[in-house]
Amino acid sequence: MFMKVGVIGTGITKFGELWDKSLRELLAEAQLKSLEEAKISPKDVEMIFTGNMCADALSGQLHIGAMASENLNLNVPSTRIEGACASGALAIRAGLQAIESGAAKIVQVNGVEKMTDVSVEQVTTALMGAGDEEVEGFAGATFPALYALMARAYMKEFGLTREELAAVPVKSHKHGSMNPIAQFQREITVDDVVNAVMVSDPLTLMDCSPITDGASSIILASESIAKKLNPEAVWIVGSSQATDTLALSARESLTEVKATRLAAEKAFKQAGITSKDVHLAEVHDCFSIAELLAIEGLGLAKKGEAGKHAAAGFHYFDSKIPINTCGGLKACGHPIGATGVKQAIEIVHQLQQMAGKRQVKKAEIGVTQNVGGTGATVVVNVFKR
Amino acid sequence: MFMKVGVIGTGITKFGELWDKSLRELLAEAQLKSLEEAKISPKDVEMIFTGNMCADALSGQLHIGAMASENLNLNVPSTRIEGACASGALAIRAGLQAIESGAAKIVQVNGVEKMTDVSVEQVTTALMGAGDEEVEGFAGATFPALYALMARAYMKEFGLTREELAAVPVKSHKHGSMNPIAQFQREITVDDVVNAVMVSDPLTLMDCSPITDGASSIILASESIAKKLNPEAVWIVGSSQATDTLALSARESLTEVKATRLAAEKAFKQAGITSKDVHLAEVHDCFSIAELLAIEGLGLAKKGEAGKHAAAGFHYFDSKIPINTCGGLKACGHPIGATGVKQAIEIVHQLQQMAGKRQVKKAEIGVTQNVGGTGATVVVNVFKR
Repeated sequence: MFMKVGVIGTGITKFGELWDKSLRELLAEAQLKSLEEAKISPKDVEMIFTGNMCADALSGQLHIGAMASENLNLNVPSTRIEGACASGALAIRAGLQAIESGAAKIVQVNGVEKMTDVSVEQVTTALMGAGDEEVEGFAGATFPALYALMARAYMKEFGLTREELAAVPVKSHKHGSMNPIAQFQREITVDDVVNAVMVSDPLTLMDCSPITDGASSIILASESIAKKLNPEAVWIVGSSQATDTLALSARESLTEVKATRLAAEKAFKQAGITSKDVHLAEVHDCFSIAELLAIEGLGLAKKGEAGKHAAAGFHYFDSKIPINTCGGLKACGHPIGATGVKQAIEIVHQLQQMAGKRQVKKAEIGVTQNVGGTGATVVVNVFKR
Repeated sequence: MFMKVGVIGTGITKFGELWDKSLRELLAEAQLKSLEEAKISPKDVEMIFTGNMCADALSGQLHIGAMASENLNLNVPSTRIEGACASGALAIRAGLQAIESGAAKIVQVNGVEKMTDVSVEQVTTALMGAGDEEVEGFAGATFPALYALMARAYMKEFGLTREELAAVPVKSHKHGSMNPIAQFQREITVDDVVNAVMVSDPLTLMDCSPITDGASSIILASESIAKKLNPEAVWIVGSSQATDTLALSARESLTEVKATRLAAEKAFKQAGITSKDVHLAEVHDCFSIAELLAIEGLGLAKKGEAGKHAAAGFHYFDSKIPINTCGGLKACGHPIGATGVKQAIEIVHQLQQMAGKRQVKKAEIGVTQNVGGTGATVVVNVFKR
């Protein structure tokens, strides 16, 4: 039996190239904001979990757990969680389990990544740590190349066109233009995507999420505490995680992310919902093709149909099934560890009717899907007002 | 209220320079051994947590969670936990919380580190990720240097002599000589320690734990399942974690590891014991001085007295308060992520009277103390037969 847990505060920094802020400063800024929104003081925090992927490779800094508690001048249990690009949602899961176990009643969950102080080559190499280093890294694969393979296979199997795929980032940039913290707030066209510089055929620069600095933070509380502290609390009513092989080449299919389906089935069951009940979702669009695979994995479209839905405009904030209203990883930016927590924040704000210009009208049940690697880790969380 | 959790199986590789085994192979070996000892099959494992610190820097591999579930051909939730050298014990804590939350009844907890494929300089740099990179790393500090500062301060405050300090590794090597998996199984003398090459004054090579490859694994189960599956199960009856500043220079004292005291107080309270009830302990002797600080932090000696106890031989397996009967980090070796789980395995074996030549006679309550950095994270777990 899954015990629901409340989100009673959120905090997020601007996402972008933040050369004047350090890893620690970004983390601290988000941490203080979530405390402020929850109207609690640091000493109310009993435990901290922080998602981060690349601080070792990009800043020479591990042990972010201790940094997070030091930022609040606390001595509480504080741990870094890593599962590649799913690190943020995994940190949320750790927070849920801490509360459900009775070990804590109020937990802070953070995500942080500082990526723009080094070269693009260093970042690309660091990100390959999410794949299978022996099988994929040594062979010279990069993540754009691996997702390009998935895109090619999907195009061949389902007849997806280049233009249909381009509808994904076009929609993301439209949403980003309405999100003040987004890295890119400029709209783009299908032509912009198709004619952008090629990264890994068929994926152009406009199919690829950017390199980003940023941090995000939420405060989780047990049901009784959350009800007391915040009448606007949003509830996490389902949470699941599934894994698959590290290497793409070892998977059963290139056109399905099995771990998404497995995680969604369990999380939806815990929440007592089906995919039909989902009003909006934040999914892991590290590359355009990943968004389509996510939508299908969550059961929000049949296999092979998500591209047509995208091209038909179904995924805009004011359409049938709003996807990535924050702008997604593509336009909001993708500070790796911060992304999973940011997805939760966007859903919380939507469910609280606090999403401003990009507010979804009917937003009572929202879902996040956060992916590590090419689908070796997937976390699905379900939120309810 | 802390719910006790059973350890129903253990698995560990040889510790040492294992050039013929990869990170994945080491992890898989330990994983399969713990399943074998618990007499369960991979599909009985509902969740996996794996402690690892440096695989990113030393092998280019993150996302060890997915690797661990792939090794067992599973799709279950599987997460990497990192808190520098305390990663292993933090993974155990994650496993405890998963079981206590009701999310799983059987959990595998692993630790792994592959350190000897690169240069000593690369390892030393990677390990600095455990400290404060901005304050300590940029200033050129290394971990031997930071612990040397602590040793000097302790010598000045409590009159500890060079020979008394040397008693720590002499005892560790004696214990290591009785442990078939230990990296060093050769006894050494006080003279060997004092006259060894200086690493960071006053710490010589023989005061420093080595660079090691290795992996360790345990199977945790809820009380009812553990009782059913293994009548010899050892119980974790208390577990706590505390944090302190990342940088040594920001601490209140150089001669006390405050986080050890804080974590021990809570863990002992959960277990319903005091330090007087502890029969044996595995503590984090990354450097000789660290063992003395750990013993005092656990309340097993008064401040300033642990060195005299060491010199008087109190900490041998057949003496008053056996410490690090496996040989400790110094002689057994220190494959970072594997260490915290290995400490648990040694205590489990002692409590099961399965520790061979180094068996402690009265071994009913044992404690592990695992440290990250210079004390920025400390985990204390209490085990009972």
